[in-house]
Amino acid sequence: MLKWFEKSSGSDDVVISSRVRLARNIEEYNFPSRLSKEDAGRIIDDVKEAVLNAHEDNSYFHSVDMNNLSSLEKVAMVERHVVSPNFVQTLVPTGLILSEDESISIMINEEDHLRIQSITNGLNLDEALQNAYRIDDLLEEKINYAYDENIGYLTSCPTNVGTGLRASYMIHVPALETTGKLQFILDAIGKFGITVRGIYGEGSKARGSVFQISNQITLGHSEQEIIDNLTSLTKQIVEQERALRNKLLSEKRLQFEDAVYRSYGILAHARIITSKEAMTLLSDIKLGYELGILKSDIKNPINIYGLMTCIQPANLQKKINKELKIDERDIERATYIRNNLPKII
Amino acid sequence: MLKWFEKSSGSDDVVISSRVRLARNIEEYNFPSRLSKEDAGRIIDDVKEAVLNAHEDNSYFHSVDMNNLSSLEKVAMVERHVVSPNFVQTLVPTGLILSEDESISIMINEEDHLRIQSITNGLNLDEALQNAYRIDDLLEEKINYAYDENIGYLTSCPTNVGTGLRASYMIHVPALETTGKLQFILDAIGKFGITVRGIYGEGSKARGSVFQISNQITLGHSEQEIIDNLTSLTKQIVEQERALRNKLLSEKRLQFEDAVYRSYGILAHARIITSKEAMTLLSDIKLGYELGILKSDIKNPINIYGLMTCIQPANLQKKINKELKIDERDIERATYIRNNLPKII
Repeated sequence: MLKWFEKSSGSDDVVISSRVRLARNIEEYNFPSRLSKEDAGRIIDDVKEAVLNAHEDNSYFHSVDMNNLSSLEKVAMVERHVVSPNFVQTLVPTGLILSEDESISIMINEEDHLRIQSITNGLNLDEALQNAYRIDDLLEEKINYAYDENIGYLTSCPTNVGTGLRASYMIHVPALETTGKLQFILDAIGKFGITVRGIYGEGSKARGSVFQISNQITLGHSEQEIIDNLTSLTKQIVEQERALRNKLLSEKRLQFEDAVYRSYGILAHARIITSKEAMTLLSDIKLGYELGILKSDIKNPINIYGLMTCIQPANLQKKINKELKIDERDIERATYIRNNLPKII
Repeated sequence: MLKWFEKSSGSDDVVISSRVRLARNIEEYNFPSRLSKEDAGRIIDDVKEAVLNAHEDNSYFHSVDMNNLSSLEKVAMVERHVVSPNFVQTLVPTGLILSEDESISIMINEEDHLRIQSITNGLNLDEALQNAYRIDDLLEEKINYAYDENIGYLTSCPTNVGTGLRASYMIHVPALETTGKLQFILDAIGKFGITVRGIYGEGSKARGSVFQISNQITLGHSEQEIIDNLTSLTKQIVEQERALRNKLLSEKRLQFEDAVYRSYGILAHARIITSKEAMTLLSDIKLGYELGILKSDIKNPINIYGLMTCIQPANLQKKINKELKIDERDIERATYIRNNLPKII
């Protein structure tokens, strides 16, 4: 079964994906930072039973034994946004429940007892939230959430208290970034309780002009208000990105085409390539496909974001089933890209 | 009929072509700097008759009326090394006799009354000299050369007196150039009366790692000595270039391949390209073909030097039959290269 990011349907020209994450804790247990190994194990068992047995399709969810995973496989999951970087480093026993297409994941004993995550392609936070709610409801039938009538859901870190909701869009904004206009937007939207980070979360650098835009405030607003606020601001960014793309295209079409085709030419022929350079070039051709400069046949729809994910260091090694040193990776990455780059017509 | 530089046979991995030029003057006339229009016309007529009627194949040589040529066509001839830059600027009436494949040209009333030039592919100065001698002999039957028993052929500029011979090799030395070793060689060979210049002669910059290496001394040595001396030094440069290529290939094969393929990828996809950048990238792929990194089918043998010539500003405009502004040229050059770049297999 294809992973959500390998499907090409649903994504749009700017918004790659929508993601929600609900933080939940169980009343009877200490927060994970003070959780005993035994209690951690009990939580894992309870959650697994609640989810795996309840879902109508038994094969849709499966439990991943994190202890059995190599560190390579764990990092690959982080690169695919299936789990958080913290999750693979924590000392408390952890559990993970994952849907087949990896669009839904439930981290057990991360910073909170439960982190329910749901991802969809394109601009579709409402669907992502509904999918997360279904899991949330399922669990609530079997588990007593730590919940306060006045405050809402209680969480390890006060920044998550209330709704426990973090909603985010993954956006591709090459025109805003290369013209330097993104910085102005970032400065402005901070006031609205919205933050923008690189593709791999807090402290990570943006690569390939891919950014995550998400809410910082979880308390004092309803889930719908949070999502509507984030969506409204994101739509404004999308409109600005589109306007700028059209401006560049109408004013400097040929220079634009030249840059896109050169990036394609390098990706299609390079023998050594770092992930940083590959992300930049893939960003160029993603834009090229979206603006109709590059064309591919319909049978082979373009999913450059999927390629961006597969060439990350750990996923690359998983894809070719080989542990590699850094310089070997740059060689295999170039080969992988050559073999998987959509042909242009 | 193909021009000499469009043929792929005969060229080798380092030496692109061999060229000789004989400077001759006619006893009865003033040197061109003091030549009357009438006398200039007489010389043109005499030389045309001597060459055009004498050659066994009537169609092999033809006379070019320089007055009827556009400045674009004149510059295109300079780019193809058919005539010298001076020749198209001179005020005296000039004449030009050209062989079909442009391997032999006779400039009439350049700096001297006669400049007989012969070019061959690859390292083959002996053949080039023999071809020039045949024309020289043909003319000598009908014309009294200005000749002094002690000094030799008399010429306008004292640097050509004696043999009147300038011999040169066109060499492609990317490994020597990019490693900075070429400069040491240039410093050393000056002592031997040898000079190295860019692809378009005195004062021109090297482009695409193509250089001309030629004798400076025309007096006090026989033609054969001049040629042997130049050939011996050129062979040493060739050996150094080859050794360095092999060293780079054995020590950094993959980096080398990567650079070659990237250059190919850009040439095969760019939409705008200057002649300077194109020369650099074509130099890379020329090296790539010579070292067997890039391969093409045998039916379509590689002649990158031919492509280097065709993308020069004036020749490009001639090829596509359109006068172009500079920025239009960069676009048409990219198109021309895409259409004429050998496919790799």
